[in-house]
Amino acid sequence: MTFELPPALGLSGDEAAGRRLLERIWGKRGIFTCTVANTLTSTIPGISEAGDTPELTMFTPVADAELLVLNRVVCMKGLPINPGGIPTPATLTKAALDLSRMPMLIIDGGCRTKPNIPCIEVGGECGDKVTTGHAVKNVRQAFEYGKILGKELARTHDYVVISESVAGGTTTALAVMLAMGTIRENLMSSSSPNNPKQFKMDTVMTGLKAAGLQIGDLANDPLKAIECVGDPMQPVNAGIILGAAPHVPVIVGGGTQMAAVLAIALKLDPSVEGNVIQGTTRWLMSDRNASMPALMAKVSPRIPIVYINMDYADSPYEGLQAYEWGYIKEGVGCGGAAVAAVISSAGRITCPMLLDQVHAVYRDIMHCE
Amino acid sequence: MTFELPPALGLSGDEAAGRRLLERIWGKRGIFTCTVANTLTSTIPGISEAGDTPELTMFTPVADAELLVLNRVVCMKGLPINPGGIPTPATLTKAALDLSRMPMLIIDGGCRTKPNIPCIEVGGECGDKVTTGHAVKNVRQAFEYGKILGKELARTHDYVVISESVAGGTTTALAVMLAMGTIRENLMSSSSPNNPKQFKMDTVMTGLKAAGLQIGDLANDPLKAIECVGDPMQPVNAGIILGAAPHVPVIVGGGTQMAAVLAIALKLDPSVEGNVIQGTTRWLMSDRNASMPALMAKVSPRIPIVYINMDYADSPYEGLQAYEWGYIKEGVGCGGAAVAAVISSAGRITCPMLLDQVHAVYRDIMHCE
Repeated sequence: MTFELPPALGLSGDEAAGRRLLERIWGKRGIFTCTVANTLTSTIPGISEAGDTPELTMFTPVADAELLVLNRVVCMKGLPINPGGIPTPATLTKAALDLSRMPMLIIDGGCRTKPNIPCIEVGGECGDKVTTGHAVKNVRQAFEYGKILGKELARTHDYVVISESVAGGTTTALAVMLAMGTIRENLMSSSSPNNPKQFKMDTVMTGLKAAGLQIGDLANDPLKAIECVGDPMQPVNAGIILGAAPHVPVIVGGGTQMAAVLAIALKLDPSVEGNVIQGTTRWLMSDRNASMPALMAKVSPRIPIVYINMDYADSPYEGLQAYEWGYIKEGVGCGGAAVAAVISSAGRITCPMLLDQVHAVYRDIMHCE
Repeated sequence: MTFELPPALGLSGDEAAGRRLLERIWGKRGIFTCTVANTLTSTIPGISEAGDTPELTMFTPVADAELLVLNRVVCMKGLPINPGGIPTPATLTKAALDLSRMPMLIIDGGCRTKPNIPCIEVGGECGDKVTTGHAVKNVRQAFEYGKILGKELARTHDYVVISESVAGGTTTALAVMLAMGTIRENLMSSSSPNNPKQFKMDTVMTGLKAAGLQIGDLANDPLKAIECVGDPMQPVNAGIILGAAPHVPVIVGGGTQMAAVLAIALKLDPSVEGNVIQGTTRWLMSDRNASMPALMAKVSPRIPIVYINMDYADSPYEGLQAYEWGYIKEGVGCGGAAVAAVISSAGRITCPMLLDQVHAVYRDIMHCE
């Protein structure tokens, strides 16, 4: 095996499998998808920092989608920020898509208000609070439509990248993995360095109780787990994995939220295991408040994790420097898109090139306001 | 100029421009889109033969979309046929997409009942009868969304194919071109060799009168013409042309219906003229009951027409042989998809190969029932 990883990428999890998969798709052409959705869970004060206020978190997924497609936000004033003005990771996603010229599809998993752009519809609706115990409608249709889409995309592309923008999504991810018994404690990351782990755990346990569930009760019914305590993004992306991975590699772009999607997919069809890669960021892999390696070991020790070695320490913009202090770290498929940009260019696209483009995107958006 | 047209393709209209455009995209990678929509116009008895009965014409666009994506029809029993059992041209579209592995997007321009597949949504609704004089809602949004989509697809593909499945669509195309004054008589084709031209003309004139319009009144307001007497497919596809053609060539896949879309697009932005090609079939070009060359001369004499030289005379299936007798001739982008398959394969894909695949698709669908 002579395959050399470029400095832009790091490898964790099953590294040998990762090298094999990367070699298969190196220099080849993939497609990037991002499924955006709302869950009212994000409006529970203290749950989500993906927005300046709890109510504004409802606009974040839609704004991210608009940003990727239009290079500006229509649904609200300004761009999605965490409290303190830290800009959405969609800035890196957009930079990676710009440089790689990778095709992109936005999927409306279920937004309260539709993005002001053409999107793929899958019959999803805005999710209810996880505390209700009946959080998501139309799960089976969204899952089936995801499968159809995954199969179709695999027919015409060499690999498929999936991702999400769902404020409050680490909480629903935690809830689904607890319902399935994948984990029994909170190993999730957060877009804030001050991850309110116990509060999230308490919120989720309220939801499980409302659904009449104990930890692990739905080990064999992941779609039911989504219906009870998940979010509308999850069935779509699990479906895409099941539709695409029998044919081409799937890059699961994201952090602990997407690990839950992977857990769901592996439960529904364990055979996809050999054809999925988690694609994420250095920031997430080094998050001291979460344990991505420990979480992935629970989901499956045989999944390779590829991460982009982005470093914002020398950025002239404080909002971007904050990524180095533990803010944001992942989301909107920024890790997956960046990893895929390196892959599709056979390593020609580097982290310094991506950083320059992030700055260009950031300036461009700021100038538009 | 040494570019040699393969036997699979014929050229008409501005042939020199056609050769230049073909050479630019020869062997390159495009994307196929099909916008499906309903207009209640097709339920007026005698207007449309794209369905076994007037009421069944409402299912034809949705069934075509399902056929392309799922290889089977979910929304109704059987596959879309013209009276007498002549199968939908989607059979050729699917064959071309299968052989070329070209990416495909289905856009729901406005169907009464949504296709049972993931589609791009553009805010369109089922159109009303042309006779009402207020036939289409949300025209401006659908047009803007088409523009966004066209620009996005052009960013990541070397050319874009647009097409339609709209039963009753030649009548709404006629209506819009009369309202714009592009034509003053019925030069439209039909999916039947017995094209009820006068009846369609009378129906359309009823619509113009209901809208308070005379021929040519909306020469400078094509979107208003769609609102009054068009169908929901038209603004989306006109938008895609305007979004994509400034960047990459657009293949307008279809016959006289898509000529109307081209007329709309050229009126809104004459500069796209140098970057569009009409992509159609030999059957349409030789239709004795319509005058495609005469119509295109009215729309613009500077548009090249490329057609696929398919011949079903030796097919073992009578339903396919009927294409040689003047039935169907075009639709669901079959001409555009077949032309694009030849282009993307740099001429490696031939008409005999397409014919074999059409037979495989046809047998496969029949077997599924």
